[in-house]
Amino acid sequence: MSSTSTLEQPIHFQTSPDQYRHWKLSFDGDIATLAMNVDPMGGMREGYELKLNSYDLGVDIELNDAINRLRFEHPEVRCLVLTGSLDRVFCAGANIVMLRSSSHAFKVNFCKYTNETRLGLEDAAENSGLRTLAALNGTASGGGYELALACERIVLVDDRNSAVSFPEVPLLGVLPGTGGLTRITDKRKIRRDRCDVFSSIAEGIKGKRAVEWDLVDAVAPLSRWDETVAKEARTLADAQPARAQKGVQLPPVACETVEDESGRTHLKYRYVTLSLAHAERTAELCIEAPDTGAQSAAEALEQGAAWWVMQAFREFDDALLHLRMNYRDNALVLLRAKGSEAVVRRTDALLAAGENWFTTEVRHLVKRVLKRLDLTSRSLYAIADEGTCFVGSFLELALACDRIYLLNDPDHEVKLGVTALNAGPLPMSNGISRLETRFLGTPEAVGAILAHQDKDSFDAETANELGLATYAPDEIDWEDELRLAMEERTSFSPDALTGMESNLRFAGPETMETKIFGRLSAWQNWIFQRPNAVGERGALQCYGTPNRPEFLIERT
Amino acid sequence: MSSTSTLEQPIHFQTSPDQYRHWKLSFDGDIATLAMNVDPMGGMREGYELKLNSYDLGVDIELNDAINRLRFEHPEVRCLVLTGSLDRVFCAGANIVMLRSSSHAFKVNFCKYTNETRLGLEDAAENSGLRTLAALNGTASGGGYELALACERIVLVDDRNSAVSFPEVPLLGVLPGTGGLTRITDKRKIRRDRCDVFSSIAEGIKGKRAVEWDLVDAVAPLSRWDETVAKEARTLADAQPARAQKGVQLPPVACETVEDESGRTHLKYRYVTLSLAHAERTAELCIEAPDTGAQSAAEALEQGAAWWVMQAFREFDDALLHLRMNYRDNALVLLRAKGSEAVVRRTDALLAAGENWFTTEVRHLVKRVLKRLDLTSRSLYAIADEGTCFVGSFLELALACDRIYLLNDPDHEVKLGVTALNAGPLPMSNGISRLETRFLGTPEAVGAILAHQDKDSFDAETANELGLATYAPDEIDWEDELRLAMEERTSFSPDALTGMESNLRFAGPETMETKIFGRLSAWQNWIFQRPNAVGERGALQCYGTPNRPEFLIERT
Repeated sequence: MSSTSTLEQPIHFQTSPDQYRHWKLSFDGDIATLAMNVDPMGGMREGYELKLNSYDLGVDIELNDAINRLRFEHPEVRCLVLTGSLDRVFCAGANIVMLRSSSHAFKVNFCKYTNETRLGLEDAAENSGLRTLAALNGTASGGGYELALACERIVLVDDRNSAVSFPEVPLLGVLPGTGGLTRITDKRKIRRDRCDVFSSIAEGIKGKRAVEWDLVDAVAPLSRWDETVAKEARTLADAQPARAQKGVQLPPVACETVEDESGRTHLKYRYVTLSLAHAERTAELCIEAPDTGAQSAAEALEQGAAWWVMQAFREFDDALLHLRMNYRDNALVLLRAKGSEAVVRRTDALLAAGENWFTTEVRHLVKRVLKRLDLTSRSLYAIADEGTCFVGSFLELALACDRIYLLNDPDHEVKLGVTALNAGPLPMSNGISRLETRFLGTPEAVGAILAHQDKDSFDAETANELGLATYAPDEIDWEDELRLAMEERTSFSPDALTGMESNLRFAGPETMETKIFGRLSAWQNWIFQRPNAVGERGALQCYGTPNRPEFLIERT
Repeated sequence: MSSTSTLEQPIHFQTSPDQYRHWKLSFDGDIATLAMNVDPMGGMREGYELKLNSYDLGVDIELNDAINRLRFEHPEVRCLVLTGSLDRVFCAGANIVMLRSSSHAFKVNFCKYTNETRLGLEDAAENSGLRTLAALNGTASGGGYELALACERIVLVDDRNSAVSFPEVPLLGVLPGTGGLTRITDKRKIRRDRCDVFSSIAEGIKGKRAVEWDLVDAVAPLSRWDETVAKEARTLADAQPARAQKGVQLPPVACETVEDESGRTHLKYRYVTLSLAHAERTAELCIEAPDTGAQSAAEALEQGAAWWVMQAFREFDDALLHLRMNYRDNALVLLRAKGSEAVVRRTDALLAAGENWFTTEVRHLVKRVLKRLDLTSRSLYAIADEGTCFVGSFLELALACDRIYLLNDPDHEVKLGVTALNAGPLPMSNGISRLETRFLGTPEAVGAILAHQDKDSFDAETANELGLATYAPDEIDWEDELRLAMEERTSFSPDALTGMESNLRFAGPETMETKIFGRLSAWQNWIFQRPNAVGERGALQCYGTPNRPEFLIERT
C-alpha cells in the first residue's frame, strides 16, 4: 500500500529574511527583534487561513532560519526579542484547520520540527550568547505560549485581556505537545496542580496571577510596554559578553534534484548526496569530506559558510528534512561517509578547540544536525565499505545509526577513528555522548576507543574488536548479508520500527529534551490517532464548526 | 457514547496458591520455586487457548499474588526461582489471540498491570531480600523473556533449541512493551545495535551468543540443568541475610458490592469505600483510619495482615484495580481520607522506623499502592472537607492527586499534616518524593512543610499558605466550585486527560521505571492504535492466520 505523500507538493526548507512572509527581523545594536506577523493567505497549502498569528510549517521554517541567521550572521546580537505585530495577539498557536486536514505522519513530523526549532532557541541562549525574551504583546495561546516558554524570560502585557493559555485539552482534545507540558513542569517547575489547572482553562491566565504562578516573569501595562520590553532586553543583553561584531553570511543551501532512468531520485548537494530507491524504499545518504580544508580557526572564519564542514552539515540537515517530509515512504537509510581523513581530523581539531566564536558555532550546528539524525524516524544502517572515512564527527553519524555494517577484508581499506569530538562535545539529547550511550554498560569500552584519539585511524578488524561493528562480514558475505538485512528491515511494520527505534536509540539518562520527544510526543502521537481527537466527532475535527464533539467515554 | 466495558465479565483480583490454575509454588528451605504451568483452557474469557505457557491477565494476577505472598508469608525465602513446567518452553509471552480480541483500553491496562507486577519482582529483590533467578528451561519469547528480564539473574538451558527472543517487531508489528526494550538498554545495558538486532530476530538468540551479548547470565546443558539452577539459587540465597522465619498470612481482601436505588455502585471494604456514580462518571474513594492501632512493631507483627494499615492499603489497591479494569467509563475520582490522626501518626512512625521486617514490608506495600495510584488513568481530586485527615501516608494520597480541594472554613475542621513518611520513604516511580515532585521549583517549600513533621497537624489556612491546596474556597463557595470543577473535568476528552496527566504527574527526573510507563508504554499505546498492528491486515491481527500482513508503508 502506498501512502499519499507523493501526491503532496514537496516542501522546501531554505529561506532568508528578504523572503519571509510571516516574520519581521529588525536590529537595534545588540538587540534583535523578531516580530511575528503571519500572512493569513501565506499558508503552505490551500485550505486554511493563518488567522491571528496561527502558524503552519512554513512559519516555523522561517523562524528556524531566523534563529540560525542570528547565530551566524549577527554575533553582535546579545538579545533576541520575540514579539507579535498584531493587536492584542502574540500568537494563537498551530493552525487548527491545517492540523486537522493533515495526515497523521505530517502532523507528527510537523510537531517534531517545531520542537527542534524551540530547542534551537534554547540552545542559542545557552551556547551562542543569544539571550531570549518573549515580549507577549497580546494573548499567547497553545503553541504561541509554548514558543514563549522556549525563551528565557517572558513578559506579558497587562491590558485586562491578554493571557497565556493552553486551550488544547479543553477545546481541542489534544495536548500542548510542542514541549508545553514538559516546560511548565520541568523548566519553569510550576507546581503540578497549577499546571493541571492552567492546562484546563481554555481562556488562560493573565495579569498578576500569571506572575504569581510563574507562567510569566513579569507583566507591564500598555502605557509602559515598550519601555519595559526595552529595559528587559537591555538587562539581558548587558549580562551577556559580546561574541563578535562581524558575522558570517548564510547563502541558501543549493540542491539539484535528478530523477534517473531507473526511477531513483537523487538530491545532489556539494558534499552530500541523497539517493532514493523508491521501489525498494531504501535510500543512500553520503557525506564526503574534501581534499583540503581550513588550517586554522581564522581561515575557517574567513571562509565562513563556505567552510566545508559547515556547508556539509547544512546540506545534511536539509537532506534529512527532505527525507522526513517529502519522502515518507522511505524505510531505510544506508549512511556512508567518505573523503579525506586528514581534513576531517584537522577540522575536528578546530571545532573542538573553539578558538573563535565561529568554530564554536559550527560545532553546535554539527551537534544539532546529529540530534536531528537521532530523531529521524527511519531505520539507519551505517555502511563502512571501501573508501569509508567514519572518523571523528563522521564517526558520530555511524554511532547515530541503528546498526553499523563493516566490511572486514584486508583488500578493501576502511577507516574508522576517533577525535576529540567523540569525547563529549557533540552530546545527544540525553546529555551524554553517542559512545557513552552505546557502551552504557561498559564504560571501559569508551575509554579503550577514546585512547585512539591522537593516533591513526584503525582498520575494520580493530574497529570490530573495539565494539564498533554490528556485523563485520568479509567480502564474500558482504553483499548477501547487506541485501538480506535490507530486505528484512523494509518488510517490518513501519510503526513498530518507529516505536522500537525511539526506545533503543535513547538508552540511559533522560533530559527535558528527551522527555519532550519521548514521553510528551509519544502521548501526543497516541492522541493524534484517537477518535476523540481526530474522529468525525472528535474535538480537533469539531473545533470551529457548528458540531460539538462527542467522546467515547472510556478511559484508557 | 458508552463503552463496552460494562458488558464484560467483571475481573477479580484476589486469589491464593490453592486456587492457582497456572503456577505451582513450592518451597525448599530458603529457596522457593514458582513454576509456570499455564492451563490452556484456563483463560479469563472465552475465545482463546493459553498454549505454550502464553498468558492473559489471570495468569499475571496469580503471579502478582505469589510475589506478594512470598514477601509476607515467607520471609524465610531468600531466593525465588522462576521457571516453566512445559517441555522446551519457558513462556511464550502474552497470548496473541487474547490481545487481538481485546479492546484498546483493556490492552493498555493489561500491559500496565503486567508492568507493575514485573516492577514488583524487582522491588522484592531490592527491598525484601527476595533474590530472583529466571531459570529458563526452554524458550522465553516476548513477554516470557520480559518476565525473565525482571529477574536479577537469567540462566538459559543450552539444548541447541531454546532461545530468548523478542518476536514482537518482526512478527506482530508491536513492541516488547512490558519493559522489554527499556530493560535491555537500561537495566542490562546491552549495546544499542545489538538490542536492535535482537529485537528484529523472531527466532531469538541462544547458547553462547546469548551469554556473550549479555541477554542471559549463563547457559547450562540439559544434563547439568537441575544442578546448575540449584547452585545458582544457592549462591543468590547465601548472599542474602535472612529476614525472619515466620511470616504473616494474607487472607483474601473482602469486598461487598452493593447497587443502591439511585443506580450507584458501592464497593465496601473495611477501611475503604469506592462509590461510583455511573451517570456522572464520578467516583468517591474514601480511606478511613480506625480509632485504635498497634502501638509497637511487635504488636503490628502480631496483628499481621489484620493490622489496619496493611489491610487498608490492600483494600485500596484492590479498589484501584476494580476502577481501572471494571469501571472504565469512570472519569474522575474524588479521594477522601478520614479517621484518627493519632492512629495514622503512630502507624506512620512504626512504618518509618522499620523495627522489624514486617513493618518494613508494609511500608513497601504502601509505597507500591501509592505508585499504582500515580499511574491510574483517572483524574484525581483530593477532597479535604470536614473530618479530613490528610496526614502522613494519607497526605501522600492527596499529593498523588491532580488537584487538592481544601475547605477553608473555621467552622469545619480539616486536618493536614506531615510525618516522617512524607520525607522520602514512599518515593514515586521517578525516584523522589511526592512533595519534592510537587515543589520541584521551590525545594524550600518542601522544607517548610517538613518542618511540621513533629508538630500537630495544621488547619486549612496554614495548608493553603504552605502550597498544599489547589483551591481553598470557604463554605459558601465550596459546593459550587466543586460541582463546576467536576462538570468541567468530565466534559473533557478522556484521552487528552490521560495524556496530560501522564505528563504532569511525573515532573523531574526519569528512572527506568518511569521510562517504561512513559516512553515505552506511550509508544506501545500509539502502535496499538495503528492499522499496521490492529487493522484488518495489521500484523497483530494476521499472526497465526493464513493472512499475511499488509502495511501502510509511510513512516511516521
